[in-house]
Amino acid sequence: MPIITLTTDFGLKNGFVGTLKGVIWSICPAAQIADISHDIAPQDILEGAFALWRAYPFFPAGSIHMAVVDPGVGTRRRPVAARLGSHTFVGPDNGLFTPMLEDAEKNGWPMEVVHITNGKYFLKNVSHTFHGRDIFAPVTAHLANGVPLAELGPRITDPVRLPMPQPEKTTTGWHAHITVVDIFGNLTTDLLAAALPDNAQITFHLHGREVCGLAASYGHGQPGELVALVDSENYIEIAIVNGSAARVLGAKVGDIVKVVVI
Amino acid sequence: MPIITLTTDFGLKNGFVGTLKGVIWSICPAAQIADISHDIAPQDILEGAFALWRAYPFFPAGSIHMAVVDPGVGTRRRPVAARLGSHTFVGPDNGLFTPMLEDAEKNGWPMEVVHITNGKYFLKNVSHTFHGRDIFAPVTAHLANGVPLAELGPRITDPVRLPMPQPEKTTTGWHAHITVVDIFGNLTTDLLAAALPDNAQITFHLHGREVCGLAASYGHGQPGELVALVDSENYIEIAIVNGSAARVLGAKVGDIVKVVVI
Amino acid sequence: MPIITLTTDFGLKNGFVGTLKGVIWSICPAAQIADISHDIAPQDILEGAFALWRAYPFFPAGSIHMAVVDPGVGTRRRPVAARLGSHTFVGPDNGLFTPMLEDAEKNGWPMEVVHITNGKYFLKNVSHTFHGRDIFAPVTAHLANGVPLAELGPRITDPVRLPMPQPEKTTTGWHAHITVVDIFGNLTTDLLAAALPDNAQITFHLHGREVCGLAASYGHGQPGELVALVDSENYIEIAIVNGSAARVLGAKVGDIVKVVVI
Repeated sequence: MPIITLTTDFGLKNGFVGTLKGVIWSICPAAQIADISHDIAPQDILEGAFALWRAYPFFPAGSIHMAVVDPGVGTRRRPVAARLGSHTFVGPDNGLFTPMLEDAEKNGWPMEVVHITNGKYFLKNVSHTFHGRDIFAPVTAHLANGVPLAELGPRITDPVRLPMPQPEKTTTGWHAHITVVDIFGNLTTDLLAAALPDNAQITFHLHGREVCGLAASYGHGQPGELVALVDSENYIEIAIVNGSAARVLGAKVGDIVKVVVI
Repeated sequence: MPIITLTTDFGLKNGFVGTLKGVIWSICPAAQIADISHDIAPQDILEGAFALWRAYPFFPAGSIHMAVVDPGVGTRRRPVAARLGSHTFVGPDNGLFTPMLEDAEKNGWPMEVVHITNGKYFLKNVSHTFHGRDIFAPVTAHLANGVPLAELGPRITDPVRLPMPQPEKTTTGWHAHITVVDIFGNLTTDLLAAALPDNAQITFHLHGREVCGLAASYGHGQPGELVALVDSENYIEIAIVNGSAARVLGAKVGDIVKVVVI
Repeated sequence: MPIITLTTDFGLKNGFVGTLKGVIWSICPAAQIADISHDIAPQDILEGAFALWRAYPFFPAGSIHMAVVDPGVGTRRRPVAARLGSHTFVGPDNGLFTPMLEDAEKNGWPMEVVHITNGKYFLKNVSHTFHGRDIFAPVTAHLANGVPLAELGPRITDPVRLPMPQPEKTTTGWHAHITVVDIFGNLTTDLLAAALPDNAQITFHLHGREVCGLAASYGHGQPGELVALVDSENYIEIAIVNGSAARVLGAKVGDIVKVVVI
């Protein structure tokens, strides 16, 4: 049974996501479909990229990941499909797949990216405003049925990339950036835990607050305590035990966390 | 694998939707189930009708669509099942299926509507407050198993209909109405694009603002610009590029858009 | 096809739930997965327990219910799996399964609870902060594949229990407690309808308001009317017809409803 995932900013209220599943099952009735997120902030390509990037490695090889955060729908931005290692991605060519492209390069996976142009795999009538339904969902379903990537259109080597946040080295440590604020109000940063030296005294500074050292997990602090810890992707995360660091600190994506190593 | 869709105002917090899936899979274990929406505003039958109406044509022939927006649960309103062309609908007889009935009539599809009375296809204990679980879900699953519609109860010819919004012709054009406000704040109206003459100068007036002509898609305007365009169902839509027309204008369902043709 | 349900406080925005499905399908590709709720209030174990408790009896025998509301993740709280009658539950040992344990005892179902310790059934790398992904999802999928419960770890007899709300008998009736506020603003209590005597005059008092007698269903009152009725699990519920009792009364979980029988 082919596995398909969906990541969009369509929300769950208006039936857009249900429509995508109808299109997919009309073409590939056996597809197992998992929603990654449909609550990406409207037009927030980076947020969509991070949500998909954290989830896709946990899907089986051969999974097809359709993602649509697409402020340029109906303009000349290209629809693309990318096979990166054992996973395939389908969506607009606007940077949404940047971290997956970086994973593939870093790991030396085979990469094949095509500009989707073959209308044979679209719905009959293509609207100007809902390419998720009319182009990306049917193409995804045809891929799940075994249509070769090369059938969809010409190969390209210049998929659009977004600048991904990177921690900046300072004289005393790093300026890390908050990359994701999760549902609990936990603040993920772009600093890999592996970058921190062993046996050093490390402090984290943000929004006038200071955290010393790393906690093993949320439950190792007192309720209400501000802690730093290693998140489930091995990045440094700032959290409040049983609370919301985002709300208490007023922190948001892009804010700087000063990391000082002594 | 039979395909079932669900449209309700049950929300996703309390487990009601999960319960429906349990009931369905207890009777028809192979059913593929797609959520259309569970965030219909409580008791807003028209909103539920529009969400389902936009999605159902994209599901395969033979799909069964269960919809429950049901302020009259436990009263004498009838439970109904309707086969309209190649799709089947199950839910309360309160107008929720009006646009699907209109589609069937307009297209000359075969129509068969029954009053669900055969308790053999209900759960053993029927509560007064959760017919989604006790009547509609099991009936839907039995239909998916191949139970004939006529088994469910007597045929009826008078399913309840809601007055659907219609644009009003004026001396200079139309008074269209906002029918749906989507997650992006885009405003769909009841005016079909096909009603507009070619080669005319058209202006749209709402909430003291004016839009001239039609844009090809969202991305063809400047961010923040108010545009009119043809939506994915071929109706006129008002939108703000990369923004929310609903929020900026304070627009809501039922508001009038004056369309002037010169 | 094995059936798995998911109940968490992970929300739907960040892709955590999609990740769980990826893990499950990597191990048990044919699993049918139903979401019970992912909008449990963060760390609200009791809310999660109630959501799952209301839904699980409607799933087929043999279903496996994974639930993660887990403020103690990464501490020494035990991961557990419990077979209670024909249903299996997987999650943290923090009281989340209390009402299911009570059901099993009350009904004399066979009960087997194990402390999950066998790392063979975990993901290779176990983080300190996401045991849903690294422990509970893979264990759930292995159980769906037929791995015996006893394989997971040693049997225990002391799973953690939460004190569940119980109505208090008074000289004139009961003090019942609001246990769940649903999406409609309806207020479920811990008083079973069967506790009320037939042919008595019963009044319900909360937040300075009074309701006399029981309505058959929501639709039997006038819009805006405050009514008491028997909910779909046979408990007393307070509701406002076509409105939100929670919002109008300012009522919340834990509030007392005084029930007076004359």
